[in-house]
Amino acid sequence: MGWTGALPDSLVSERGGKIVLLIADGLGGLPHPETGLTELETARTPNLDALAAEGATGLHIPIAPGITPGSGPAHMGLFGYDPVEYLIGRGVLEGLGIGFELNEGDVAVRINFATVDGTGNITDRRAGRISTELCEELSARLDTIELPGVELFFRPVKEHRAVLVLRGDGLVGDLNDTDPQATGVPPRAVSATRPEEERTAELLNAFIAKAREMLADQPKANAITMRGIAARTKIPGFVERYGLRAAVIAGYPMYRGVGGLVGMDVLPVAGPPEAKTLMLAEHWEEYDFFFVHYKYTDSRGEDGDFDAKVQATEEFDTIVPGVRTMRPDVLLVTGDHSTPSALASHSWHPVPIALVSPSTRRDGSTSFGETQCLGGALGLLRAVDLMPLMLAHAGRLAKFGA
Amino acid sequence: MGWTGALPDSLVSERGGKIVLLIADGLGGLPHPETGLTELETARTPNLDALAAEGATGLHIPIAPGITPGSGPAHMGLFGYDPVEYLIGRGVLEGLGIGFELNEGDVAVRINFATVDGTGNITDRRAGRISTELCEELSARLDTIELPGVELFFRPVKEHRAVLVLRGDGLVGDLNDTDPQATGVPPRAVSATRPEEERTAELLNAFIAKAREMLADQPKANAITMRGIAARTKIPGFVERYGLRAAVIAGYPMYRGVGGLVGMDVLPVAGPPEAKTLMLAEHWEEYDFFFVHYKYTDSRGEDGDFDAKVQATEEFDTIVPGVRTMRPDVLLVTGDHSTPSALASHSWHPVPIALVSPSTRRDGSTSFGETQCLGGALGLLRAVDLMPLMLAHAGRLAKFGA
Repeated sequence: MGWTGALPDSLVSERGGKIVLLIADGLGGLPHPETGLTELETARTPNLDALAAEGATGLHIPIAPGITPGSGPAHMGLFGYDPVEYLIGRGVLEGLGIGFELNEGDVAVRINFATVDGTGNITDRRAGRISTELCEELSARLDTIELPGVELFFRPVKEHRAVLVLRGDGLVGDLNDTDPQATGVPPRAVSATRPEEERTAELLNAFIAKAREMLADQPKANAITMRGIAARTKIPGFVERYGLRAAVIAGYPMYRGVGGLVGMDVLPVAGPPEAKTLMLAEHWEEYDFFFVHYKYTDSRGEDGDFDAKVQATEEFDTIVPGVRTMRPDVLLVTGDHSTPSALASHSWHPVPIALVSPSTRRDGSTSFGETQCLGGALGLLRAVDLMPLMLAHAGRLAKFGA
Repeated sequence: MGWTGALPDSLVSERGGKIVLLIADGLGGLPHPETGLTELETARTPNLDALAAEGATGLHIPIAPGITPGSGPAHMGLFGYDPVEYLIGRGVLEGLGIGFELNEGDVAVRINFATVDGTGNITDRRAGRISTELCEELSARLDTIELPGVELFFRPVKEHRAVLVLRGDGLVGDLNDTDPQATGVPPRAVSATRPEEERTAELLNAFIAKAREMLADQPKANAITMRGIAARTKIPGFVERYGLRAAVIAGYPMYRGVGGLVGMDVLPVAGPPEAKTLMLAEHWEEYDFFFVHYKYTDSRGEDGDFDAKVQATEEFDTIVPGVRTMRPDVLLVTGDHSTPSALASHSWHPVPIALVSPSTRRDGSTSFGETQCLGGALGLLRAVDLMPLMLAHAGRLAKFGA
């Protein structure tokens, strides 16, 4: 439940405590068949356990019961944006994933290099998974394409994947994919179903034709297909919505990008977990809200490797003391979704939460784990409800009504 | 909570595991004043207890807190249809209850035989509760009534109750009742408040007049009144909505009817509980989803007989092994609502759930009962959220967003 979409502006105060939202990507898990303990429950996490014991615990449902979120919707929920209303297009997310700075109104497209035969039919939708080196070389080639009235950016991602960005007035997203998801047939054209789509469709079709000419010498990657054509739409940012000066501290471009989408300043970090807390300390005075992101709990879960996820969870635990040194008024630790190693993928299962602030109501949790969080003081709530909770504990929400 | 109304089509996959939804009607109860245990907690239910211990438990709220559902809305919720949006009219439910096969667009009406005096005022709204035999005889008589441009079906229900069905083009439901809920006054006429209601109102008033003529010889049942005038509206079925080939296995016409409304094939059964699992085994390969319904937990609760409800619950427990023999990928056991014998009626209390599948997150429940389910991994959720959960556990829902 919660406020559908946004808190009433009148409730939000620009003064109040500092908030740290510390995210272990894919934190939630499933029990090991032999021990009955999840990855988080198996891991030795003294610092997280102390948070659970001192604060309030609970579980959040990222989107809705049974719904497995992608990274985009999962983070939008954590940031207090209804993930259904503020759905980030796939092309945009791919652009954010490589650290491309998308402007409002830009249209981003996921590209596959593909192989077509003499009659124009697709014989390999992934161009034999060409090397990333070749992808980079061909992307540089296609980045030289020019079309009237629009700026074009063609960037490599990995193997056969790339991103195309169009920048200019009057561009729109949500056009059809050209990848037919089958071989033995030609790629589809981009077709406009409404007048305002015509120009974007024409530009994309012209790009495809020019790319075909420039790739004619290639034995495998002699064509491109398009998917997830999406515009970066306007999203009211953290300042506008919450009166918060916010920053993202993340190693992966995707999460920096999602933070940037909601108006967070991007503080890039690389290297060991300590780098994150050093960055936090360095910029502590400048911001009211820090989104600190740790990736490997998700990566190891996706690998289907229980022990490695346990190890990543233990590494995540080492970030906590550095964060606590800064004495945030509100520290909320959770994941964006579950990534049980048993499923080797994101899942719909609720995600453990620990919330520490002077005004949390404590509960019986003595360590941080899925089972103990079930009986926690925060209960089972939607991710989108966490922002109002953090703001409240930071003394940043006024009374509703008289 | 949940997706308001329907899951996005794009998430639903037509491939995945098999699901069994096993319903004990009116399963939830209230504690016995002496033992503090509910009917379910009192009953010896080793098979249900094993499900609770192996899987995830929780409680569902059929409609909303404090709302006691009828059978129609309660089942629509279980099937993932917002029970307020997809409200089944009372006439339609009465028709389904006697196993009448309603077509889309049919209008069904609950009928009471009544007694009127010489001035036309009602003296007995239930015609002295005439025998069911007389009801059948008089219904056969009124079934011969003909009106232009419409097919008519008049069927007995029980004692003074019957159903009238109108089949033809341009009929509408939601017209006023003619039963004035009082004696000493005449029945009301059916009146149209909008032009499109005029034809249906005229037909119903004409039927009432002809019925009066044909019942003139009756000392008690010399008139009829109408209530719950309702059209069978179009409801998107399980195939359309979930990509599921579904079947209902139920002894009572009402539940077969509600299953049929959402596009389930009806596999009628009668006799002992084993008949249900035999039917399940026989049709196992043909369907993706089975709704198996057991009635007597509700019936004995409605009787206000605690011990008899305990006994019915123990009988329900014997269905479980036969279902598990089929190795469903997802087995969800719950009730459609609570029917505490202490209240001798349906109630609003949350209903215990046990969900077993390889990807459930276990919890501390060791037996199946209201109190243990309170701490279950599924938490307290709406009935309408159960379908997405079942689909997710069956691997039938794609990731939402990238």
